[in-house]
Amino acid sequence: MANVEEKSPRLWAFLLATYVVSFSTLYMLWKAYIHVSELRSTALSAPDVKPEQYAILVRDIPAVLEGQTRKEQVDSYFSLLHADTFYRSMVVTDNIEVNKIWEDLENYRKKLARAEAILAATKTRPMYKTGFLSGEKVDTINYCIEMIRELVPKLKIEQENTIREKQQSSALIFFTNRIAATSAAQTIHAKKVDTWTVVEAPEPRQIIWRNLKMKFYQRKLKKDIVFVIVALTIFFYMIPIAFISAFTTMKNLKKLLPFMKPIVDQPQVKTVLEAYLPQIALIVFLAVIPKILMFLSKTEGPSISYVVRASSGKYFYFIILNVFIGVTISGTLFKTIKEVVKPDTNQIWGLLGKSLPQNATFFLTLVALKFFIGYGLELSRLVPLIIFHLKRKYFCKTDDEVREAWAPGDINYATRVPNDLLIVTIVLCYSVIAPIIIPFGVAYFGVGWLVLRNQALKVYVPSYESYGRMWPHMHGRILAALIIYQVTMIGYFSIKKFLYSPFAIPLPIFSIIFALMCRRKFYNSFRYTPLEVVCAKTKETPNLEAIYKAYIPPCLSSYKFDETQEFGHALSAFSKTGSSV
Amino acid sequence: MANVEEKSPRLWAFLLATYVVSFSTLYMLWKAYIHVSELRSTALSAPDVKPEQYAILVRDIPAVLEGQTRKEQVDSYFSLLHADTFYRSMVVTDNIEVNKIWEDLENYRKKLARAEAILAATKTRPMYKTGFLSGEKVDTINYCIEMIRELVPKLKIEQENTIREKQQSSALIFFTNRIAATSAAQTIHAKKVDTWTVVEAPEPRQIIWRNLKMKFYQRKLKKDIVFVIVALTIFFYMIPIAFISAFTTMKNLKKLLPFMKPIVDQPQVKTVLEAYLPQIALIVFLAVIPKILMFLSKTEGPSISYVVRASSGKYFYFIILNVFIGVTISGTLFKTIKEVVKPDTNQIWGLLGKSLPQNATFFLTLVALKFFIGYGLELSRLVPLIIFHLKRKYFCKTDDEVREAWAPGDINYATRVPNDLLIVTIVLCYSVIAPIIIPFGVAYFGVGWLVLRNQALKVYVPSYESYGRMWPHMHGRILAALIIYQVTMIGYFSIKKFLYSPFAIPLPIFSIIFALMCRRKFYNSFRYTPLEVVCAKTKETPNLEAIYKAYIPPCLSSYKFDETQEFGHALSAFSKTGSSV
Repeated sequence: MANVEEKSPRLWAFLLATYVVSFSTLYMLWKAYIHVSELRSTALSAPDVKPEQYAILVRDIPAVLEGQTRKEQVDSYFSLLHADTFYRSMVVTDNIEVNKIWEDLENYRKKLARAEAILAATKTRPMYKTGFLSGEKVDTINYCIEMIRELVPKLKIEQENTIREKQQSSALIFFTNRIAATSAAQTIHAKKVDTWTVVEAPEPRQIIWRNLKMKFYQRKLKKDIVFVIVALTIFFYMIPIAFISAFTTMKNLKKLLPFMKPIVDQPQVKTVLEAYLPQIALIVFLAVIPKILMFLSKTEGPSISYVVRASSGKYFYFIILNVFIGVTISGTLFKTIKEVVKPDTNQIWGLLGKSLPQNATFFLTLVALKFFIGYGLELSRLVPLIIFHLKRKYFCKTDDEVREAWAPGDINYATRVPNDLLIVTIVLCYSVIAPIIIPFGVAYFGVGWLVLRNQALKVYVPSYESYGRMWPHMHGRILAALIIYQVTMIGYFSIKKFLYSPFAIPLPIFSIIFALMCRRKFYNSFRYTPLEVVCAKTKETPNLEAIYKAYIPPCLSSYKFDETQEFGHALSAFSKTGSSV
Repeated sequence: MANVEEKSPRLWAFLLATYVVSFSTLYMLWKAYIHVSELRSTALSAPDVKPEQYAILVRDIPAVLEGQTRKEQVDSYFSLLHADTFYRSMVVTDNIEVNKIWEDLENYRKKLARAEAILAATKTRPMYKTGFLSGEKVDTINYCIEMIRELVPKLKIEQENTIREKQQSSALIFFTNRIAATSAAQTIHAKKVDTWTVVEAPEPRQIIWRNLKMKFYQRKLKKDIVFVIVALTIFFYMIPIAFISAFTTMKNLKKLLPFMKPIVDQPQVKTVLEAYLPQIALIVFLAVIPKILMFLSKTEGPSISYVVRASSGKYFYFIILNVFIGVTISGTLFKTIKEVVKPDTNQIWGLLGKSLPQNATFFLTLVALKFFIGYGLELSRLVPLIIFHLKRKYFCKTDDEVREAWAPGDINYATRVPNDLLIVTIVLCYSVIAPIIIPFGVAYFGVGWLVLRNQALKVYVPSYESYGRMWPHMHGRILAALIIYQVTMIGYFSIKKFLYSPFAIPLPIFSIIFALMCRRKFYNSFRYTPLEVVCAKTKETPNLEAIYKAYIPPCLSSYKFDETQEFGHALSAFSKTGSSV
């Protein structure tokens, strides 16, 4: 008891600090939600004509009646329900076959351009091996022209075939104005609610065509299966992570990789390695996971932004469970093996509260490492620069290829967001126990704001626009991090036998109430487009034909445009359609 | 172990029977949901013009801007968002004051008609006391005419005042067609989702006007508070119920009410009383509760059907917890007091499984009593008949009053549904342990079908139409009853130390999956009106003006109709507006 009395003022200060940190986080989250909400409204109500605001995606269309085509069925259904505002429909087709031919064609077109560039530069006609290892050598230019000549009519036939025979049970419906489309996307259409299900159409560029044909229960089942697989992945990765953080010490490294010994024994290298080795191992190890999660998520949703959100959400829980909780507990695993083997259920959070202080250094260096190396690399774009120069020197022959190599691509939200949220979690959890982490956290996000703002505005080219739909996910996960922090603090207080630790119990309860309140107040306006924001006048009268055409997948577009055109000079005809992509 | 082996075949049969009962219940629920769904669609797509299909209810309208009236605000908002289909709006007003005056007027009108009828019959002018106990006696006819003359202009002033000054933050919006109204009711309108919230308009006759003005968070908070109050009510009624079922035995009755002894000691009376006394006590006791629950629910929703559903749901959980589980456990309370005082958490369901067989007789007689007395009374309508004859003899003087006394009213869903669901629960739970209950159950619902079908079609006058919205509630509660039954059976099997009792565990899990599946498949089509069902053509072109007028509350309607008319002969003028109610 003497021990309790002695430390009591410090713990009181800790409790107060926990309250301060919690409520300032909630306040900032609230402000941020309002801010993002407004940004979303502004973007949605912009006067530019955006094709996705005039379309809805309808899935689970029931079987076609005898003597009716799918298109007739869809058209008659929607022209009856939306007599004044229905413009036209586009039945989704199974494009796998036609896409393959189209990609082949694209490849040959690129090869041809490349070969012509080589010819112009070196005055020698490049040769081409028809097989991978064997096969005769042919003149590339002639070969490509011949292949294109062969593939163009094949593409045309397959396009016609696809459009006629491979219609799926989903369609895109176009409306004459934004209000009608927005309203239609939120209305139950059919008596049987698992048929004719409607959602707002994703942008043309982010539609995942092959996922559109999935049936209602197939979608739900697939989601459940992916959930189980991900849960298993998350829980069984605990084991390798535990080993990595226990074995990547200098001593073990020298033992396992004896040839490294002369390098490792140099004092400078040794110091750096000793400090950063476990973190580097962890970072490398974690780089593999997002690919797996992305692959799993890709089977779920109709759009890329949905997939990115789903993948990002999974990855967050993965790194929290495995990196944060995993390292915290397993880092002390070998010291307190008894407590883990026979854990008292009441002590499970106490264990985390107990282990946390011992791992402060690990996470401090993790944040520092991410800060210095991460932002340095990000800002200088050193890796893409090297890759670009290598590519330009050895691979790129045409201007198109150079441009492609230089393209900075997209900010990768699927891994960037969860990684930053991990830092949020770490900073929150250590904010009271080891407040030295706060300046690191502030620096990380302060510099991050400057760097990423610059990168987002001037470097990266967004590959899709989800109108802020990522935010509710981030909000939820920051709240999850906050609750982890609050529960950990309760564990910490009870480990310290602090008499007033029950005073910390209202905190997670308050966080949950806050989460429910935010969901009630904001979530629906992120889930659907409010009618209010789309009632603004558009700059010009929307060209409905152009909106419709924007949704034609590239592999089918030439069919629509060049229906009457002769394929006289194959290459030029194809280039023309290719450029419309 | 010998004991287990001996009873094993019987328990195997019980297990099989549990599976059979469970799956046939689920099958019937599924079929019933499809059937009710179809009935709902048919009713909604009927070609009659129904005012509620052309209107939506909008609540949480933000504060009016400077220099704008509420009506202008609402009109400009909706005519912008629904340019082609908006017809007009009706701002909800605070009608408490005007309603009071209107009710006074109605009362005097009735009194006047009554006094005239007395005069015609008895040739003596009836007299009236102006105060309740004291006050001078005046001639009723003259007094009433004078009061009506006084109140009519007062009503007119208050009507004008109400419409101008007492506008609330909610409104009814009328559309020119059903599709537009249905679609608008399902669409998020405002950027801030807690403003301009829309729902389908309830029928005019079932709107609860005073609940419409409640704000978004006030509504949610009120719901939560009512929930807590109801939960407390449910849990603390356990105590009186336990006492009732323990004390209403013959011996206790004679002890407590000694003057009853000579009657009670007669052998015929004794037999009947001994069998039915606890049940009668329980039924009387339960009659008070629905009133309380109805009162609590009345503060929640915008419509009477909502209130009935909410009240019915609460009453179901009340009678299940208190009558079924309460009686089952407390009936054996005095026998197995030790087990209850020191209950093992693992044994709580086991306790129910153990107590169940001992209370079979109680519930069997309860079902029988409800069957014989309940349906007998229902079909003969003995109580309403006696009341009618008493009323006609002593109170009714005018034809209107006789008609009012004869009116059969509404089927009272708020108590009828939960009471029948209690029988479902009892029959399900005893179906395997005491299968003698099955013929009683079949008889109860078989005769119930015949009796209530007749009553619903030929006797009762429905006071509102909710288009089958009660069904999802009933469905959910039948599923809850099924799960209680399945869990009780698991408890029963483990009490009997049946080795294969884990085979019963998949049953409740399957029921929960079934519940989720039904929710996914059907619930949304009950929550909202599907667009498909309202696209049918109506019989005649809707008279929009009549639709609008249908929503004017009776206490305000005369203002609209008789604005220019002189109030020369007060009574006839008022009678005219009164008849438009």
